[in-house]
Order: sequence, then structure tokens, then C-alpha cells
Amino acid sequence: MSSASSEPLPRTLAADLASYADKPGAPVRLSGWIHRRRRLSGLSFVVIRDRSGLAQVVVRSPEALAQVEQLGEETPVDVVGRASTNAQAPGGVEVVEPSFLALTDPAVTPPIELWRPTISAGLPAMLDHAQVTWRHPLQQAKWQLAAASLHGFRRTLDAAGFTEVHSPKLVESATESGANVFGVDYFGRPAYLAQSPQFYKQMLVGVFERVYEVGPAFRAEPHDTVRHLAEYVSLDVELGFIDDHRDVIGVLRDVVAGMVAAIHERAAAAVELLGADIPEVPADIPVVHFREALEIAGASADEPDLAPAHERALGAWAKQTHDSDFILVEGYPTAHRAFYSHPEPDDPHWSRSFDLIFRGIELVSGAQRLHRHDDYVQTLKARGLPIEPYTGYLDAFKHGIPPHGGFAIGLERWTGRLVEAENIREVTLFPRDLHRIAP
Amino acid sequence: MSSASSEPLPRTLAADLASYADKPGAPVRLSGWIHRRRRLSGLSFVVIRDRSGLAQVVVRSPEALAQVEQLGEETPVDVVGRASTNAQAPGGVEVVEPSFLALTDPAVTPPIELWRPTISAGLPAMLDHAQVTWRHPLQQAKWQLAAASLHGFRRTLDAAGFTEVHSPKLVESATESGANVFGVDYFGRPAYLAQSPQFYKQMLVGVFERVYEVGPAFRAEPHDTVRHLAEYVSLDVELGFIDDHRDVIGVLRDVVAGMVAAIHERAAAAVELLGADIPEVPADIPVVHFREALEIAGASADEPDLAPAHERALGAWAKQTHDSDFILVEGYPTAHRAFYSHPEPDDPHWSRSFDLIFRGIELVSGAQRLHRHDDYVQTLKARGLPIEPYTGYLDAFKHGIPPHGGFAIGLERWTGRLVEAENIREVTLFPRDLHRIAP
Repeated sequence: MSSASSEPLPRTLAADLASYADKPGAPVRLSGWIHRRRRLSGLSFVVIRDRSGLAQVVVRSPEALAQVEQLGEETPVDVVGRASTNAQAPGGVEVVEPSFLALTDPAVTPPIELWRPTISAGLPAMLDHAQVTWRHPLQQAKWQLAAASLHGFRRTLDAAGFTEVHSPKLVESATESGANVFGVDYFGRPAYLAQSPQFYKQMLVGVFERVYEVGPAFRAEPHDTVRHLAEYVSLDVELGFIDDHRDVIGVLRDVVAGMVAAIHERAAAAVELLGADIPEVPADIPVVHFREALEIAGASADEPDLAPAHERALGAWAKQTHDSDFILVEGYPTAHRAFYSHPEPDDPHWSRSFDLIFRGIELVSGAQRLHRHDDYVQTLKARGLPIEPYTGYLDAFKHGIPPHGGFAIGLERWTGRLVEAENIREVTLFPRDLHRIAP
Repeated sequence: MSSASSEPLPRTLAADLASYADKPGAPVRLSGWIHRRRRLSGLSFVVIRDRSGLAQVVVRSPEALAQVEQLGEETPVDVVGRASTNAQAPGGVEVVEPSFLALTDPAVTPPIELWRPTISAGLPAMLDHAQVTWRHPLQQAKWQLAAASLHGFRRTLDAAGFTEVHSPKLVESATESGANVFGVDYFGRPAYLAQSPQFYKQMLVGVFERVYEVGPAFRAEPHDTVRHLAEYVSLDVELGFIDDHRDVIGVLRDVVAGMVAAIHERAAAAVELLGADIPEVPADIPVVHFREALEIAGASADEPDLAPAHERALGAWAKQTHDSDFILVEGYPTAHRAFYSHPEPDDPHWSRSFDLIFRGIELVSGAQRLHRHDDYVQTLKARGLPIEPYTGYLDAFKHGIPPHGGFAIGLERWTGRLVEAENIREVTLFPRDLHRIAP
């Protein structure tokens, strides 16, 4: 074979080892981390982990056994050996007669036992060592759901004529709400971290009609809960020339369906490994009015908003009556939504806003927005808000913005519900909260 | 026809009006902004702008002429009329017998004359009114090159087994360099805005092997230049299991070629409108060593880095000798690159780093990085840097990171050079600098 050749053997990924099933004895090179060593009498099994999955290597020669003894779990290695079929190995093929080449110094044993089928460490230890914890196949799989979802999000919107934009995260005013905003020293002047790209995406409707942005959003959340982060990934959408918020809901439905489709296409192995229950997205997600939602949740008719317990009750109701993991609530009271929410013209007590509840937790907020300049001025006045910090924003409406609306999906909330995480931090690469700013 | 039907006529985009060439007289509905009105004796031409381009509407009836008189440029409207072929109209089809419906209040005349073929306003006025300036077709086209490039970037990397990641922008230490960092009040403690995702992408090589991120990077640039921003969009790539930096260069070449291909596929109309000279990416981009680069640029052999004038000279040389818009310089002096740069093992004075120069301006910096924990500790010591702020980062190397490297592309620099912008702010949606934090 080619072992005498001067050309190095090309690398084979663990997941592609199965293609050697009809080439027993062929030389093969793996690169990856030593995921696990299992010593039996006279032989060892070494599991190699790479970006595609796991591969099994059988070590019998005294030289290789001595080598493996020196290479602790997590050491990156090259392994050159021969393919051999074995029904017990992942993919039905393993590597035999291996020689190992360490690609760096032998690794120090990690604080998280990555070779175990599940992580036994508690959440604080997992987060303290996030740079290592994410190497665990189950953790990797969670993020693969997120990465596939991002692909599906963009693909759906690209196909619908949307333009990707990137708006600044350093902003002049704590505009959207004075509370929960991070201050920045901006060349000696005060500035803030954007709580959302809301104003920018609305202004950009005036340019591109239909825009989306994937980027960080910052909230100085003073509460330490299992579903809030100080920094999260926001999937923002805004579109113009709509009739009302139902047009926005139509795009949202297609976006969520596109995210689910991309998960099945691009992260099927992750879904299987996690045993994740990926939802079906109905062609028409059930919609109830806020008033009806309060009734379903058994809440008082004068509640201004839905509490988490109400959302859970609505999620259960949607599952029971519509066999749907999703339910939309529309028409929240105008006074309790952001000032740019569009009221229902015939009954302005209610707004053309909506929330999408996924498995009992709010995943998405959206609405038709105000589009008339005068409506903004009057609404800000009525709410006792100053005009001046909104100058650039209001200016866009003075120069013609069509009826429009949009929504924002929190990436971590989405993947958190997909894998039924108890805490949103389990699905966040490097979470930021009241207590945590590292790693 | 269907004018008596209760179903509203579906919207036709300006770019799709050409498909009515064989349906003269068919009813048609446009939605968009009044881009321009031209009054002649007895008729007016109204140009409608939507996300797809421009369409011409011919107005003859006194009622419609009176309507148009009330609707200033930039007013969003619905126009219902009939298709009519006209070789002079964009796409060969125009709309006749129109009736107009304003979708909001008549627009106030914008401070930037958007209907002129080019923008006559100066840069400060353009930036002060960015929310309106970007509506100009030439400005829109610039961003469309950026959006297409982002698509090509991700598509190339997705196909090569990379995983999209999102790393935190709020960080504990001003790690990469103490200078030019924005401070944040983080729940009463000091924190900083990430100058790059450098450390996170390296740690994530330990998880996914190959990662990319598109996100904001923050530099408190105290200099007011035409090529620096306080916040920019960074396209970051990092990959493990490499032999040396030449493997990284191979990925970079394919990424840039993928960005160019996506521009041709997805933004052909923008390229044509701008008359942009989109570069060809050679199968092998010419590479010169830093020493050779100094010679070519006529610089002294003891220069520690390339000055802008040197980069311009190298750009001209690459064009002349290789007919290439791109040139790579490798082997910058180790002492003048970031501490994590990998030295050339045989001659550690030089590093395994590189810059990609595009039309005479540095577009990309990259390198093989250190991967041994001990090398990091020694390098930080030798540079007089403390170990403590790097704890989480160094920890990843202790637990096994393979040889790896990566690069970062500045989105605005890329599109700036594509359209030969004199100032990077011309291609930035809402630029941030020493003097500007709004709109």
C-alpha cells in the first residue's frame, strides 16, 4: 500500500470511517482528541473524538500500549493504522495496528469528565470550565442545534427577499427602556450597549423593506433567573408593506419551520444523540387573543400581561386542544407593550402585538409598529417620554416608512426549549449574568 | 379583468415588471416609495422605488396628477394601474392609468436628494442622515455587496465543516491589548467590550475544530482616519489540526473566492449599478516573505512592520508582476505580532503570521497560533504580561488544543476596497468613531 510513499496519508473523519467497510486492511489516518482509554488484559480500546464524532482504535502492540499510557484523555493526536470491520464499533469499522503521534504536550486531566456518557458535574462547575465542558459530545450536540437553526433562519429569510444587516451595538441613548442598560465610557462621553436592534431595523425597513440581523443584545438584568442572560444572541426580523401583524406572524411561522427543517437536515446526529424532541410547526399556528388567553390560563380579565404560569397553562392547552407545541397570543394591552407598538385602530386599548409561546415559554415577541411620525410624537408625549433621544429614529418616519412590523427570537431560549434545559445557561457557550463575566 | 374582484391584486416588484412584456393592459400593483416625479406638460412620470429597483409610472388623468402633486418624494404608496410596454422604461414595461394610495402621511422632503443619480451631499451630511442616505440606490448597492459577501463567507465555511459560533462581547479583561478598549460598568464591576473573538475562537477549536463567527468588534481608536472605526463587523475563522499557517491561507483563499462568487450570484445588479470592479481571486494568491516585502516596497531591512505606503507599493507590485489584486505577506517579525502568534520553529525571529493585502490595503490578518500551554506561559512572561487575566484561556491549552490558526476579515474594509471608497464610513451602515455615536 501507500505506507512507503512520501505523501502523508490524508485524514479520515470518524464519521467517514464507515466507508472503509469494504476496504479492510486499508491504511487510515485519524486526527482528534483521545476521548477515552479502556484498558483490558493485553489490549486497550482508545476512543478518538473529532468534529464528526467518535472512532474506536484497538491497541495491542506493547509499543503502542506504552504510548497510550503516556497520552492522557484530551490529548490531540494523529493515529495511523488499518481499517478493520467490527460490528461493535461505531459505524461498523475500527482502526487496528495503530501508531500514535501526540500533536501537543500530553493533556492535563480536565475538571469535567468528558468521557462519561453524561456530564456528572453540577452547573456551576460546568460554567466555570465552559471552554472544556463544551467538548462533551452532548454539549456539542446542543450547540449544533443552535448552529443549524441559525442556518435555517437565514435561508428562509434570504429566500423571501430579506437583506442581512448589522447595526451598531454602541448607542447614544438608553432608548428602548431606561432600565437594565449597560453604560459605556465612549471616549469620555456616556454611551450604552444596545438592548436590541429595534430602532435600526425599523429605520432600515425604509432602505431594504425586509431586513434581518443576528447579533448580540445586552440587558443588565438585575434578576438571577434560569431564563435571563445579560448578553444573548438575538435573531431580529423586520418587514415593510404589511397589512397588519398577521403578515408578520406568517413570516415568523415560516422562519420557525425553516429552523426546524435545517435542524433535521444538518444536525440529525445531534438530534439523535440528545434524543431531542424536535417540534412540528403547524401550517397555521393556533392564535388566541390576549383576552381569550387570560381565560384559558384561568387568570383575571384585568391582568395586564401573561405571567410565566399563564404561559405554561397556554402551552399545555395548545398541546391538548391543537396538538401544537406552539401557540400565538395576539392583542396584548397597548399600554403594556413598547411605545412603538401599533394599536388596533378600532379599539386602541389592544395592540397589534403578539408573543409566540413554545412549550409553555415565551420565545418570540413581535408586533406591527407605528409608522406615522405624528403617532410617535403623540405616543411618546402620552407616555411622558422625551422626544430628543429619539431624533434620528423619528426622522426616518418623517421621510416615509411604510406600515411594518417584526419580531425577535432569542437563540438561547429556542435551543433551551428544544433540549428542555432547566437553565438557559446550559445552552449558552459562555453565559453572562449578574455574577458571571468569565470565562 | 379582476378589478371587480374582492381579492386584492397581488403586489409586483419593480424588477418583475418586465415579465408583463407579453401582457399589455394587465392590471398590476406596485408598492414602494415615490422616488422621483417629473412633470411634463399634460403628464407626469413617477418613478417608484422598492427593494428590487425602480419602476416607471405614467400619469395622465387630472385626478391622478392632482394626487401625485400631494405626495412628496419618499412617500410610501400603493400604485394600481395597467402594464404597458415602453422600450424607454426600466425593463421595457411601465405602468399606465395609475391610481395612488398613500400608505402613510406625505413624506417631508429628505435632506439628501435621493432621486439624483449620485449623492451630491458631503460625507458629514450623509452620515448625519444615514437612516435616509442609505435609501439611495447607489448606497443600497454598496451594502448589497456586503450582504452577499457574508453569504459567501458562511457558505464556503459551512461546506468545509466549520461550525458557526457566537462568543460574548462583554469580557472580564482587556486581554488582547490594554490599549483602545472600551470599559463597561458591569453590575458595578469593571468589564470591557471584546476587541475580537480571538480567545474564544481558539478555545472553541478545542470543541468544534473549525469555527467561524460574524459579529461586532470594538476598538476605542483614538485616531480619526479614513480606515478605522470604533465598531466594525469582524468575520472570524479558526481551524485546528493544521500543519502550519499555509493551511490557514488555503482556507482564506477559498473564503475570499466564495465571497466574490456570492457577489456575482446574488448582487449582480448592484455590481452593475456601481460599476464595481470585482476582483478575480487567483487559485494561488502570490505569497512573499516579510523580508522580501520590505525589499519590494523599497523599505529598510530593519523595519518592524509594513507602513500603509509599503502596502500600497506591494499592491501595485502584485498587480504588475502577477496581475493579482491580492498579495499575501508572511513571516512578520514575531516580536511585533500578537503574543499568541506561532514563531517559525527554525528561526523564531520570524512568525508564522500573514497579512492579506487587497488593492494596496491590509484586509486580513492571520497566523498559526501557539498551541502548547508552556509556550503561552513563557511568551507572556517574556513580554512582561501577567498570567492571571488569561486563566480561562490558558486552561484550554492545558487540556489539549491541537496546532491551529485563523484569520479575521474586516467587513467594511472589504466592501470599502470593492467600491474604492475613499472613507470606510461610506460603506458602514451607522459608523461609530471618536466623534460619532449617532444615528
